[in-house]
Amino acid sequence: MQPVSVPALPQGYNLRRVGKEDFQDKNLFKTLSILTTVGDIPEPKFHALIEYWNDRKEIYNPMVITNAENVIIATGMLFVEHKLIHGGGKVGHIEDISVNPSEQGKKLGLIMIRNLIQIAQTEGCYKVILDCDEKNVRFYEKCGMKIEGVEMGYRF
Amino acid sequence: MQPVSVPALPQGYNLRRVGKEDFQDKNLFKTLSILTTVGDIPEPKFHALIEYWNDRKEIYNPMVITNAENVIIATGMLFVEHKLIHGGGKVGHIEDISVNPSEQGKKLGLIMIRNLIQIAQTEGCYKVILDCDEKNVRFYEKCGMKIEGVEMGYRF
Repeated sequence: MQPVSVPALPQGYNLRRVGKEDFQDKNLFKTLSILTTVGDIPEPKFHALIEYWNDRKEIYNPMVITNAENVIIATGMLFVEHKLIHGGGKVGHIEDISVNPSEQGKKLGLIMIRNLIQIAQTEGCYKVILDCDEKNVRFYEKCGMKIEGVEMGYRF
Repeated sequence: MQPVSVPALPQGYNLRRVGKEDFQDKNLFKTLSILTTVGDIPEPKFHALIEYWNDRKEIYNPMVITNAENVIIATGMLFVEHKLIHGGGKVGHIEDISVNPSEQGKKLGLIMIRNLIQIAQTEGCYKVILDCDEKNVRFYEKCGMKIEGVEMGYRF
């Protein structure tokens, strides 16, 4: 199997896992709040969630991109589901992709997606899926993905 | 919040978690193979997966419905993702829904879905999502779900 190609980040930008230290400057929260409601997360709850994710690294891959000023400006999660079907196969689920609009035009969304697909390949997934709005289909096609179906939801 | 309503199973039918004993009669595999490729799973690999799921019960809820002859005739998985967004909220993902065609007309698919939604509610999820083919949208609407978006995929 060919390794997934991943475009390079701009000079000084980095991709890394979310850590407990990301509570302080709030840039993780600011970037996620572009996507959806983040809500109030006190520091102990944030630390507990990071520990929960870190204790399950084979499942949770919460990633961020930082710019040359070391500020978080993009987010993305890959979590890995272990199935019975497909010979006991794994599926990667991409979630919570957000890029700060001030950083547009640098292909950071595409770079994040391709990195998450690469992690999924390394973890031995047979496919990666995500759900998006109709208006973002074109972007995910540029990332190498195809329409597979319809997302249905039930909200409490 | 109102508890989710769940229709009753037919007399003698039961909903339960998948267990190691389900390797023997192969009815779990037969039911899943209606949905997709199951592939070859040797018994030790099956047992290891059941242990993996059982060690992570707050994430994996692999459920089956058995008929009056104690034969597995429907499958469904709910797995629970712990997020940072929505105040550190949880999302339930429904996967691998399959019902044996010989049992059609008993609303087993709907009963499975409503049970998985109920588990998600008990686990404190703020929403439940699943991906399906266009042709199954009407069925999931009958289960109380709504179209939320487009599923995109990347296959290795």
